[in-house]
Amino acid sequence: MMARSVDGEQNDFSPYKIIQKKRDGEELSSQEITWFIKNYTNEVIPDYQMSALLMAIYLKGMSSKETAALTDAMLYSGKVLDFKDKKVIDKHSTGGIGDKTSFILAPIAAACGVKVPMIAGRGLGHTGGTVDKIESIANFRTALPLEDFSRLLSTVGVVLIGQTADIAPADKKIYALRDVTATVESIPLITASIMSKKLAEGTSGIMMDIKVGSGAFMKTLPRARALARSIQETTLRFKKNITTMITDMSQPLGNAIGNSLEIIESIETLKGKGPRDLTDLSLQLAGGMVYLAGLAKSHKEGVKKAQTALTSGAALSKFKEMIAAQGGDSSVVDDYKKFPVAKCITKVEARTDGYVAAIDGVELGLHCVDLGAGRKQASDKVDYSTGIIIAKKLGERVKKGDLLAEIYHHQEQQMVVKKIKKAILTTTFKFSKNHSKKAAKLIIEVQTKWSKK
Amino acid sequence: MMARSVDGEQNDFSPYKIIQKKRDGEELSSQEITWFIKNYTNEVIPDYQMSALLMAIYLKGMSSKETAALTDAMLYSGKVLDFKDKKVIDKHSTGGIGDKTSFILAPIAAACGVKVPMIAGRGLGHTGGTVDKIESIANFRTALPLEDFSRLLSTVGVVLIGQTADIAPADKKIYALRDVTATVESIPLITASIMSKKLAEGTSGIMMDIKVGSGAFMKTLPRARALARSIQETTLRFKKNITTMITDMSQPLGNAIGNSLEIIESIETLKGKGPRDLTDLSLQLAGGMVYLAGLAKSHKEGVKKAQTALTSGAALSKFKEMIAAQGGDSSVVDDYKKFPVAKCITKVEARTDGYVAAIDGVELGLHCVDLGAGRKQASDKVDYSTGIIIAKKLGERVKKGDLLAEIYHHQEQQMVVKKIKKAILTTTFKFSKNHSKKAAKLIIEVQTKWSKK
Repeated sequence: MMARSVDGEQNDFSPYKIIQKKRDGEELSSQEITWFIKNYTNEVIPDYQMSALLMAIYLKGMSSKETAALTDAMLYSGKVLDFKDKKVIDKHSTGGIGDKTSFILAPIAAACGVKVPMIAGRGLGHTGGTVDKIESIANFRTALPLEDFSRLLSTVGVVLIGQTADIAPADKKIYALRDVTATVESIPLITASIMSKKLAEGTSGIMMDIKVGSGAFMKTLPRARALARSIQETTLRFKKNITTMITDMSQPLGNAIGNSLEIIESIETLKGKGPRDLTDLSLQLAGGMVYLAGLAKSHKEGVKKAQTALTSGAALSKFKEMIAAQGGDSSVVDDYKKFPVAKCITKVEARTDGYVAAIDGVELGLHCVDLGAGRKQASDKVDYSTGIIIAKKLGERVKKGDLLAEIYHHQEQQMVVKKIKKAILTTTFKFSKNHSKKAAKLIIEVQTKWSKK
Repeated sequence: MMARSVDGEQNDFSPYKIIQKKRDGEELSSQEITWFIKNYTNEVIPDYQMSALLMAIYLKGMSSKETAALTDAMLYSGKVLDFKDKKVIDKHSTGGIGDKTSFILAPIAAACGVKVPMIAGRGLGHTGGTVDKIESIANFRTALPLEDFSRLLSTVGVVLIGQTADIAPADKKIYALRDVTATVESIPLITASIMSKKLAEGTSGIMMDIKVGSGAFMKTLPRARALARSIQETTLRFKKNITTMITDMSQPLGNAIGNSLEIIESIETLKGKGPRDLTDLSLQLAGGMVYLAGLAKSHKEGVKKAQTALTSGAALSKFKEMIAAQGGDSSVVDDYKKFPVAKCITKVEARTDGYVAAIDGVELGLHCVDLGAGRKQASDKVDYSTGIIIAKKLGERVKKGDLLAEIYHHQEQQMVVKKIKKAILTTTFKFSKNHSKKAAKLIIEVQTKWSKK
């Protein structure tokens, strides 16, 4: 019953038998997984059989061997780069509200000598996209061919482009199907989706920021740990080094949400004037990348080097260099007026005294979608100028009349602003009488695994 | 989150949320199920979402309330008859090899005064179809409009037609999808599929023959019991009476497999000369129908009446009447030469002494498919003339040279016959030295449930 080959030759595999096997909780062979993915990508196997398999995987799970085989099949559905350079390290985040660490850690790490090849996504639903955010810098080109990507990586040391059809096309097709069949939140499927793209970037190591909490994919620590383990195991099977960092997403990271607003906050952070949580997390992630690249003896030493690159201004210079190299106007760094920022600012002020007990990041993300800063559908255009800046974070004391948030919007958005303002006061922010709820620890767990290649 | 209506008006249902709910093991509301089935049947919801839901149902199950709602949604996707006659009783079997009881019990029950409206299927894979078998009688019309069906039911008392697009079209569409997504063997899905069709026939009670054993859908008694319970509960929710009979399918029923061969064996049985197991089971099922119709005070008394109708020849006369009423030539009953029967008969003789320890009914069914007596694909034509008659049953003593089976085939089928002959001697029949394995009890369990309407 083994396939002699997956290259179209005769074998005894059938979609039915493979679905049935996974349905019954059995382990699929690498050949079966490869055969299924290949034929699905080539449109031989129809969507309805893939969605039955996806639901069976969701409910029955996959071993680390199966997850690696799935990752491999999706990875080799497209182009796979290999820089053969120990210093090439990328970072990936499972996504969170206000997460703009990429714009800070990438230039920091690059200033320390790490080579950072970023292939990032656009926003959909409540989370914003890295590519959308950087495009708020006029003329910044994110659609570079892979040759230019490779060249800039070696000359500038950092490059940021959008997803390309060349990289893991199977993931694109499968993700679209998972998105409409309630099969997204599956650890093996998430692992294969992330890793098939990340491994294609040709890095020697990966810094993985796994968010946990109300605003994250993984709502609980056990789930976040399970994903961390799955990603570690899969990465090691591909003979790459991996650091997983489980970090808090029980509230937005930093204060700004929205494209231009987040880039401006990132620049402020690169100038040493950013919010504490955003600065700390960016330094930790960048330091981890320095360590993975072999440019520091420990994570701690890596963070120290990252701190130096930030304080010295080297990271800010590197950021300007990246903007210029990708066609943008690097003077935006010194003149925020060059960013598209909405003219109307509506302040939301507290109505009673108390302490901030909860901030619903998903709601804040959806408010920004309503303001046009994000997408409801993949075909929507993004407004770079709108967004929300929150003024209070978890555990902070609030007095009646204190500023809670500022909504950046257009004149004609009065209706939606009214709705958002009401939501912020009633559901997005929750208050308690006593100082009960503190913010969770920002960095919960860090693990580095070295491949023994 | 409740729908105000499922008739196209605005509501908050979404395929995603319904799939997600079932995926998480929650109970779907009747409104959600109805909405999903309706929109799937109308081709608003695509196959890939239905197959994800089917796999979630397969793995997470359904409550009896959900199963009834699913049955209801599928039932009302088409026409629903209602004869408002307590004597209208149908029988359904979950399918087995050599199962030709319908042709025997229906005229027996009708001769006792039961009205028997049979809407039956065609064969696919290893099981033959009732409609294919009866069509081995030349000109027998199985494609009657529902008006003729109703008329013949009241005049003749028994009528047998094929499935029509008017009855439960949702089941047809869903069954085709289950067949290719490994979601067939699910008790709630089987229940809804069977009952949506049976309830549409407008009977007041249903006799359900649930086969158990190697040649059946349900391989084990606990699975058969679970299906019996599910069918009982669903039928009672629709205020109909139900008898479930769990019967043995560890070997073929009777001796003949193949279309004409099975009809001839049925006629022999109606003449009182049939195999013991086939005769007994037919009488038990027919007797149960007489009881369900209120024409006997107990199942036992029903069986007695059935026996009388068989012995007196009344059942055979009713069978002839049915053939004539549906356009067939009833003289076939007295002249088997009028059946298409293949000219070549290859005998398979035992090579050693022993006892029959196992008969693989599924294999026998597949041999018959290879002979053209069944279908590999729904579009295949059926050969009425070919088949296999087995000469030994479970537990029987066999001496070297004894006849095991006769293969009815065409001259040009030598290759396939050679293969079948070899299989019969090695894998289809298994022998033991000692008289260890007896045939299982034919009728394992009988339960009648009366609706309190």
